[in-house]
Amino acid sequence: MGTPFLQALRACLGDANVLVDGDMDAYEVDWRKRYRGRALAVARPASTAEVASVVRLCAAHAVPIVPQGGNTGLVGGGVPDASGRMLVLSLARMQQVRRVDPDNLTATVEAGCVLHALQAAADAHGLLFPLRLGSEGTCTIGGNLASNAGGTQVLRYGTARELCLGLEVVTAGGEVWDGLSGLRKDNTGYDLRDLFIGSEGTLGIITAATMKLHPRPGWTLTALAACPGIDAAIGLLRTARARLDAGLTGFEVIEGFALQLLARHFPQLRQPLHAPGWAVLLELAADDQASAERRLHAVLGDATARGLVTDAVVAGSLAQARELWQLRESIPLAQAREGLNIKHDIALPVSAIADFLREMDATLHTLVPGLRPVVYGHLGDGNLHFNLQAPQDMPAAVFLDRHEAALNQRVHDAVVARGGSFSAEHGIGALKAAELARRKSPVALAMMRAIRQALDPQGLLNPGRVLPPA
Amino acid sequence: MGTPFLQALRACLGDANVLVDGDMDAYEVDWRKRYRGRALAVARPASTAEVASVVRLCAAHAVPIVPQGGNTGLVGGGVPDASGRMLVLSLARMQQVRRVDPDNLTATVEAGCVLHALQAAADAHGLLFPLRLGSEGTCTIGGNLASNAGGTQVLRYGTARELCLGLEVVTAGGEVWDGLSGLRKDNTGYDLRDLFIGSEGTLGIITAATMKLHPRPGWTLTALAACPGIDAAIGLLRTARARLDAGLTGFEVIEGFALQLLARHFPQLRQPLHAPGWAVLLELAADDQASAERRLHAVLGDATARGLVTDAVVAGSLAQARELWQLRESIPLAQAREGLNIKHDIALPVSAIADFLREMDATLHTLVPGLRPVVYGHLGDGNLHFNLQAPQDMPAAVFLDRHEAALNQRVHDAVVARGGSFSAEHGIGALKAAELARRKSPVALAMMRAIRQALDPQGLLNPGRVLPPA
Repeated sequence: MGTPFLQALRACLGDANVLVDGDMDAYEVDWRKRYRGRALAVARPASTAEVASVVRLCAAHAVPIVPQGGNTGLVGGGVPDASGRMLVLSLARMQQVRRVDPDNLTATVEAGCVLHALQAAADAHGLLFPLRLGSEGTCTIGGNLASNAGGTQVLRYGTARELCLGLEVVTAGGEVWDGLSGLRKDNTGYDLRDLFIGSEGTLGIITAATMKLHPRPGWTLTALAACPGIDAAIGLLRTARARLDAGLTGFEVIEGFALQLLARHFPQLRQPLHAPGWAVLLELAADDQASAERRLHAVLGDATARGLVTDAVVAGSLAQARELWQLRESIPLAQAREGLNIKHDIALPVSAIADFLREMDATLHTLVPGLRPVVYGHLGDGNLHFNLQAPQDMPAAVFLDRHEAALNQRVHDAVVARGGSFSAEHGIGALKAAELARRKSPVALAMMRAIRQALDPQGLLNPGRVLPPA
Repeated sequence: MGTPFLQALRACLGDANVLVDGDMDAYEVDWRKRYRGRALAVARPASTAEVASVVRLCAAHAVPIVPQGGNTGLVGGGVPDASGRMLVLSLARMQQVRRVDPDNLTATVEAGCVLHALQAAADAHGLLFPLRLGSEGTCTIGGNLASNAGGTQVLRYGTARELCLGLEVVTAGGEVWDGLSGLRKDNTGYDLRDLFIGSEGTLGIITAATMKLHPRPGWTLTALAACPGIDAAIGLLRTARARLDAGLTGFEVIEGFALQLLARHFPQLRQPLHAPGWAVLLELAADDQASAERRLHAVLGDATARGLVTDAVVAGSLAQARELWQLRESIPLAQAREGLNIKHDIALPVSAIADFLREMDATLHTLVPGLRPVVYGHLGDGNLHFNLQAPQDMPAAVFLDRHEAALNQRVHDAVVARGGSFSAEHGIGALKAAELARRKSPVALAMMRAIRQALDPQGLLNPGRVLPPA
């Protein structure tokens, strides 16, 4: 039954692993239900060889492919478009942890391995895989790499890119590139690995990866500090980095209004600080409890003496540390309960953040009086989630409809003028492809298009994502 | 006077910055005097705009270009070939430190900035630029990035690649790509930065870079430990990493015969250990002297109790630390005094190193009885300098002439069979282009060639280096 393409696909994967009807929402709709597409079919290969066969079939029949991992992306890069022509290539059955090498501090896993499973595999060897994301129970390593995921431990351990040593990739021509290196140093030719990382499935399909593991810290300590303003929070960051160096594993900020939203929608969450201008969540790793406490108190003492910190609580137990992190992690939900908002995932040089926020404070209200910014994020990485909630008396739908384009432009103008990024960790996908074409220099765009053309001349890998049609 | 090309070049840069005769050794011969080429001319632009003009002139006149920094490369990638057709494009006049941004922990420098000058600029702000190389007084940041330089601090801070946040590059078409990002996170399109890093001037010409700075450690402690064998040294590495984590900033090994060469050629260097099988140089960073000593003694005590370490000295002063490092840094000279040898700059998964050395021990002597391996390097990165000295009674010239090809093949076969690299940190250049074509998979080679063709369709950027003619 079906077209010659579908017949060949079934012959290759077996009927059970080619889905064409029934409820396909799990593959056609992103988890936030912002993108609803329609797939030609869903292919569920179980091995690298099967992925290569599927890609060769697609090349022969000119069928565009959207690779999909845990379908937790935020920019619509992992679901099909509305054309009904795209094949969803799900990596979900490729879940193996192929090897953990404790002496080399590496693990080789397949693309569909869920992030949490890799964390657990490292843990079983007394080691740490430090990528930490809200979606870690669902998202996959392949997707983490395709989107160069960030999260809350980037300050110390880097993004998915920096945690990856080697890749296995199926090329647009359906060949297998075995670049599964476990090497820290290898200067033999061009860096193909980093070209695939962050390319969101448009240059090749990641089927496996060798990831770095780290020693597990002896002791981790979490604190929440109140800072009177963003300048003070940046001063605290400077002090914490200088004194703790690599011991500083997290430095998150939450602006006062975001804390108010938490209080409104999650009153059961204990907020230990009294209405701070900004709250800073610090996480510190050290050899043992005593040295962790000594080092953290030195930082907080110094910062308090200099007026950077007005109040602080240090978690006295693992449960208390989890409570503090829960505040940070509940903000996305709290703002969702407050109503739809306009999101910006921006990065700036740390030295430009205060000035950026001052400009936003001075200008956005002139565009939409009463608009309410929700500001939080990874200050240590210069990465803020700068979201705009409708004025109290304006329905969210009206706010988005009338003001989203102008506000996006104003925010991104201010970001780019300071050397910043309009997509720090979420990627481009379908959502920001037009913005990328507008914002990137013609030189950069031309190079990206040339590379895309060189590696995928038929243009079948996730077309329309990252780079919009020329 | 001269060809239209040279006339145009002089009009662009001024007569004084276009060299065509006189003593051109400084540009035509590499510092070890292994590669002697002949240049059409040497161009010395002083700005990015001038570099772009020179490249456009070369494109118009089909003149191949070899970019050159401090001319300290080890693989002949920075000097012209013998054709007399290549233009040497020296970045030596582009030395500015454009900006140091302490809050963002970044410095933006021009490509011709000498590594030591960047170290000094960071130091002046109480910060650290951690790239550390023997050639740091001469080599330039542009060359460090073009070759993805490594050195002795990679274990903690990464290679040049990991220290770079953004680049400014003149493309093969003579356009300027301003990718000088100071961002830790930026997921807007393909990773062009990492494509240029390590491409040895074959994809574009790096004119400036934004590099990461780090907090300066409060205290640094150095020790030399005696290990009975390579397995013990790897056991010590495992223990040191687990206990010190990011506090371990260096882990170098020196095999016994290399120490004997030091004793023979540099008898004035004090060797504090008595004829160890392997010596391990450990460097540790910590908040202060007391915690550094406590942490290091815990590692050495544990390793001694388990028989991994049989003797150790801890430097009691900065001068003593320098003496220990001098042992490590004098090995290249000691082996040169012993006579020419066959060099291998290899990387392996740490877990494969002992097995590799056992195979070498068992097989190389059957090829050349009495051959003397000089083994040392960055064990923490899996990177060994595995060099082969002629048997005592064989002239080095005869040894190289008769046995170099077969020994290279045997060593690289054993490396590649274990997932290793035949060029860990020195790059490919002219020396290893043929080896790269032999050793890389056809899939990888085809992608590299496609990328080269996409970004430099005329093939004028450092032709013949990295990728040999197809």
